[in-house]
Amino acid sequence: MAAIDLNSDLGESYGAWSMGDDSAMLAVVSSANIACGFHAGDPSGIWKTVKAAAENGVSIGAHVSYPDRVGFGRRDMDVTSEELTADVIYQIGALKGMAAAANTRVTYVKPHGALYNRIANDARQGQAVIDAVKAIDSSLVLMGLAGAPILDLARTSGLSTVAEAFADRAYTPQGQLVSRREAGAVLHDAKKIASRMVQLARQGTLEAIDGSVIKVEAQSICVHGDSPGAVAIAQEIRRRFEAEGIAVQPFVTA
Amino acid sequence: MAAIDLNSDLGESYGAWSMGDDSAMLAVVSSANIACGFHAGDPSGIWKTVKAAAENGVSIGAHVSYPDRVGFGRRDMDVTSEELTADVIYQIGALKGMAAAANTRVTYVKPHGALYNRIANDARQGQAVIDAVKAIDSSLVLMGLAGAPILDLARTSGLSTVAEAFADRAYTPQGQLVSRREAGAVLHDAKKIASRMVQLARQGTLEAIDGSVIKVEAQSICVHGDSPGAVAIAQEIRRRFEAEGIAVQPFVTA
Amino acid sequence: MAAIDLNSDLGESYGAWSMGDDSAMLAVVSSANIACGFHAGDPSGIWKTVKAAAENGVSIGAHVSYPDRVGFGRRDMDVTSEELTADVIYQIGALKGMAAAANTRVTYVKPHGALYNRIANDARQGQAVIDAVKAIDSSLVLMGLAGAPILDLARTSGLSTVAEAFADRAYTPQGQLVSRREAGAVLHDAKKIASRMVQLARQGTLEAIDGSVIKVEAQSICVHGDSPGAVAIAQEIRRRFEAEGIAVQPFVTA
Amino acid sequence: MAAIDLNSDLGESYGAWSMGDDSAMLAVVSSANIACGFHAGDPSGIWKTVKAAAENGVSIGAHVSYPDRVGFGRRDMDVTSEELTADVIYQIGALKGMAAAANTRVTYVKPHGALYNRIANDARQGQAVIDAVKAIDSSLVLMGLAGAPILDLARTSGLSTVAEAFADRAYTPQGQLVSRREAGAVLHDAKKIASRMVQLARQGTLEAIDGSVIKVEAQSICVHGDSPGAVAIAQEIRRRFEAEGIAVQPFVTA
Repeated sequence: MAAIDLNSDLGESYGAWSMGDDSAMLAVVSSANIACGFHAGDPSGIWKTVKAAAENGVSIGAHVSYPDRVGFGRRDMDVTSEELTADVIYQIGALKGMAAAANTRVTYVKPHGALYNRIANDARQGQAVIDAVKAIDSSLVLMGLAGAPILDLARTSGLSTVAEAFADRAYTPQGQLVSRREAGAVLHDAKKIASRMVQLARQGTLEAIDGSVIKVEAQSICVHGDSPGAVAIAQEIRRRFEAEGIAVQPFVTA
Repeated sequence: MAAIDLNSDLGESYGAWSMGDDSAMLAVVSSANIACGFHAGDPSGIWKTVKAAAENGVSIGAHVSYPDRVGFGRRDMDVTSEELTADVIYQIGALKGMAAAANTRVTYVKPHGALYNRIANDARQGQAVIDAVKAIDSSLVLMGLAGAPILDLARTSGLSTVAEAFADRAYTPQGQLVSRREAGAVLHDAKKIASRMVQLARQGTLEAIDGSVIKVEAQSICVHGDSPGAVAIAQEIRRRFEAEGIAVQPFVTA
Repeated sequence: MAAIDLNSDLGESYGAWSMGDDSAMLAVVSSANIACGFHAGDPSGIWKTVKAAAENGVSIGAHVSYPDRVGFGRRDMDVTSEELTADVIYQIGALKGMAAAANTRVTYVKPHGALYNRIANDARQGQAVIDAVKAIDSSLVLMGLAGAPILDLARTSGLSTVAEAFADRAYTPQGQLVSRREAGAVLHDAKKIASRMVQLARQGTLEAIDGSVIKVEAQSICVHGDSPGAVAIAQEIRRRFEAEGIAVQPFVTA
Repeated sequence: MAAIDLNSDLGESYGAWSMGDDSAMLAVVSSANIACGFHAGDPSGIWKTVKAAAENGVSIGAHVSYPDRVGFGRRDMDVTSEELTADVIYQIGALKGMAAAANTRVTYVKPHGALYNRIANDARQGQAVIDAVKAIDSSLVLMGLAGAPILDLARTSGLSTVAEAFADRAYTPQGQLVSRREAGAVLHDAKKIASRMVQLARQGTLEAIDGSVIKVEAQSICVHGDSPGAVAIAQEIRRRFEAEGIAVQPFVTA
């Protein structure tokens, strides 16, 4: 039987400001990338999300970021390797503490936003993140973009990795994400998206933007919960997976 | 043979700003209260201090604070119990992560500044801190002011505690700290302070400000490192302890 | 013809997090209390709100706060007078800069949240706020709770003041707000609220929670925009004022 | 008679952390680049520095930065133009408020750290800074690196500019700063530095690192105060200027 992980960004509220529909998404996903306070997430909100994830049997990942709350971690920053390693250890540690307090544990690490994009190809910053993960807990799995060099670098360094695909994004014939600046980069039709994801889960392939069929090796699919439309897409994927007998399950369990 | 712990606040630099003489103090103390980022301490600086403490065989405590960096955690804040519990779990978790990355561990928790003073007598906020410590790691020891109600509350709640005395502060005949607003509250003579601490370590007594002798049950002595004069006092205490055959050792070891 | 000011808290988004329906509220109010960055508001968002207020002919007030973003300025803080004065000058200055860049100006200052409540009766912190306003621009009007000592203190110190009433709050027979902890403290019926506000604008009176009629001298009415229900109440008040021929206008114009 | 401005970074303390010797430097310089809170400077500290500058007759400039306190504004950030313009308006506004409260005014703007270096050559971010200055107060002078394109861009946009040279830096034969990564980039000999600055002030020339004489058109000289050695260099320059009859005066007065 086919099986795949669904992951989404959660715990991105901050103090009085709420973001996303965490309770709806916890019924959809098997893995929760939980903000650690640097781009989003205050301790009270993080803790609520950690507890809710644990109650829903959803795996917990540390969604680590550059220290840029006002920019939501979306702005590239030229941090030193030492700074980045320490920032990542600190964030993972904080979330591990929350998980321990909720009688569960953190199983993976997914860099967020600009850091995610930067380390996909930047070996220096990528190595700094890898060094952090290895230093604090080498059993943590690093989640990264399917096909990106960071995954090879992490495995070479001794970390386990999981590759993810993006449900609502178009792919180039070379297997890369179509830039958001280009037409058709973001998909909106829930049923079509769900069909694509069934194909991905079953056959490991996707139709690229030019109609060719490409191989995408992904053990996890990223879905979004930051708008009602995004939640509906995620729910449709989950519904289709259940209807088609594809198990939605974390790639690693707590 | 008499033995006692010496503790001091370390890791209080922040980014480009340095504070205190951590390397001098690591040669003096047996326990380091390390800032966790809320009143002081950025991840890079915290990590350096954690590694240096481990290298010096100094025990590591989480110096948790209200979220008030610009006020250095010195301003009383009316936080809810839920906020405070989450803030404390987050900070302890972050420091535990740093300690794990340095192959050591956090052994105790010492609230900082306004939070320290508030929970000495405020049972609601005190309980919120205790709940946090118990939730994340009930083996952590809570450090508090000798004679303060918080220590009883913590023990009743099932935590181990350690009481501390302040080397450079005068005491009332009732065994409380003389308020800093009163004359003679802060002591400056290194030799006299060292003699007082020898008496405390040997006999568990101190001369109060009125000349009476009071009983002070303390397993740890807090010394400061935030000025050259403070460092010199701490060094004199250490020197005297060694000369008198009083062992300086952590109350709990990593 | 009767005339009164309607004010509301605006510009309370922060980075990627939105809060409130500023565009709806700008069609309702005559005065906008705009966040200055300490409890809410990032520069980009503040600037958008300042420009929108100017375009709508809405007066701009500096909604100054304790430095507590994660607590949304709702937690009492024991700041020194010097810190508070400097914090308030800084915030007013930042908003004045934004206003100047939008070819308009700040006309008043309204402390936010815990600071608002604290200075209503705390003369020390109140004086620190007054000193800040006088230092940066003594033509700025201080907005405060109708009947609160802070307004007398400000006038004695040479500032102009404007007293405000809260549309959705019940009042005691002594003219004070019924505590939110008591039943009936917050009103929800838009039509009844609008009728109360017509009475306030016309006669300067309100029915207290015990049915007695009390005098409330207020030149401004605070309405909220932080939920669809709150916006609807504000819109109903505006509609009724227009239907009844009560002019909604700022107490001071830019 | 020759005359030139001496400028230095001041107000870079933050809360409990002090940095630099502001009082020593205020006796040396004619212009103070005062931190505005984004890389350094809390309101209380900024205000003290603004008042001290005013008392010493030193011109006040807004030392604006990326929002990166933990990185001291030294890390390049990919901010949008809109974000950058708003950030700069906010900071200038805050400092103008402080200056107004001290009965003085801000006369110029000097971007700090990574922002300074970035806009020297990056026209997009440079224009965003220029737009901010023009929007809030087009009479403010923009200070930049002598010879850098940003100065032309600012003048083309209608701003006045002032070019600065760095007292303790070596120059290439092309008139650019020798990179800090290269040997000899930073000068340490106070007397030689002072002699170079006399030549610069009198003749507008400097000896480049290869011994050639280059033309450097600078109306201001940047000196540092972040270490005792740096303060001594600044004092030596001032002493030599006075001995040689070179007037040290702001390029624009409050």
